[in-house]
Amino acid sequence: MILDKNFNMFLEELASSAPVPGGGGASAACGSLAAALASMVANLTTGKKKYAQYEEDIQRILREAEEKRNALVALADADAEAFAPLAKAYSLPKNTEEEIAYREEVMKKVLYDASIAPLRIMETVSEVILLIEEVAEKGSVMALSDAGVAAVFAEAALKGASLNVFINTKSMKDRDTADELNAKAHALIADGSARTEAVFSKVMKRLDN
Amino acid sequence: MILDKNFNMFLEELASSAPVPGGGGASAACGSLAAALASMVANLTTGKKKYAQYEEDIQRILREAEEKRNALVALADADAEAFAPLAKAYSLPKNTEEEIAYREEVMKKVLYDASIAPLRIMETVSEVILLIEEVAEKGSVMALSDAGVAAVFAEAALKGASLNVFINTKSMKDRDTADELNAKAHALIADGSARTEAVFSKVMKRLDN
Repeated sequence: MILDKNFNMFLEELASSAPVPGGGGASAACGSLAAALASMVANLTTGKKKYAQYEEDIQRILREAEEKRNALVALADADAEAFAPLAKAYSLPKNTEEEIAYREEVMKKVLYDASIAPLRIMETVSEVILLIEEVAEKGSVMALSDAGVAAVFAEAALKGASLNVFINTKSMKDRDTADELNAKAHALIADGSARTEAVFSKVMKRLDN
Repeated sequence: MILDKNFNMFLEELASSAPVPGGGGASAACGSLAAALASMVANLTTGKKKYAQYEEDIQRILREAEEKRNALVALADADAEAFAPLAKAYSLPKNTEEEIAYREEVMKKVLYDASIAPLRIMETVSEVILLIEEVAEKGSVMALSDAGVAAVFAEAALKGASLNVFINTKSMKDRDTADELNAKAHALIADGSARTEAVFSKVMKRLDN
């Protein structure tokens, strides 16, 4: 697994010219940091008398944030697996009509897979954002800055993954599919950015001094 | 070292209620992802005929991005070391005048240290941002999306670390010092956000489809 290794080693692989891990895997990593920070806020809240009214919600947030975090770690692999065949497909010959037709057919499939993988990362990060929003509301005020950090990381993960959607849809000949995937990505950014920026602003207002 | 371990284990520690690693260490991690992505773009550019005119700059970017990445990994530890004494200081007794005076003296030092550590992360991320800006300009267009991801991650690292500055300066009695540190953090965000958002916009315009 791409992220189930020493972090320094992951950074080394990311920094290299190898096609994966790249921006997609890094976005999954950034999203998993956001999910872990949401868990941290919940863990600093659970059992506290002051927040007893939210205990059930906090327990649910703990379960779901861990689930999403693990999903993002797994999605880093899915992204790498979807992206790897793309480089190969680009180097397929295109001399004869048959070769061109075959290449186009292969490209269609691999471009779709390579666009869907970062879109899945975006969808999962969007779910993490709902948890961050909730834990910033119901979680301990002592951990408010961590909720704010989670929010900015989640937005970055969302935007980062979106670039990996757009770079692949741009090469698609099937413009209907490209438009559909682009629309989904744009909608997730619009919704997610609004939510994360609201959390960040709220936190900044509380920490302003 | 906080980041010199399995990434999943780091996430686990981050998610826990332990005071460190927290938002500061996570911001250092996010900044190191940005630095690694800047390296990736440079590594996909070096040696290419099309970018031969920039080869010297690319080589310098490779050296500096790795240096900054390692610095950020080390700053995650420095942040943890500065933050750990804070929890202890908060629990010092404050019954007698002597105790109160001693506690204030200790608080002054630990709050300063705990504010400076994330400020150092911000300064290093700001240096990474200059490299991202340059590599987005001179690097291979094939890796443009990775430069865009680096930009959004760097901005997130900057904002994330800033919250850890503000949460500590807020508790400072010495308002001159607090104002000075806050002004530095705000200036780094203003400059860094403008630069990273310009890179992201440029990349989005190129990938728009």
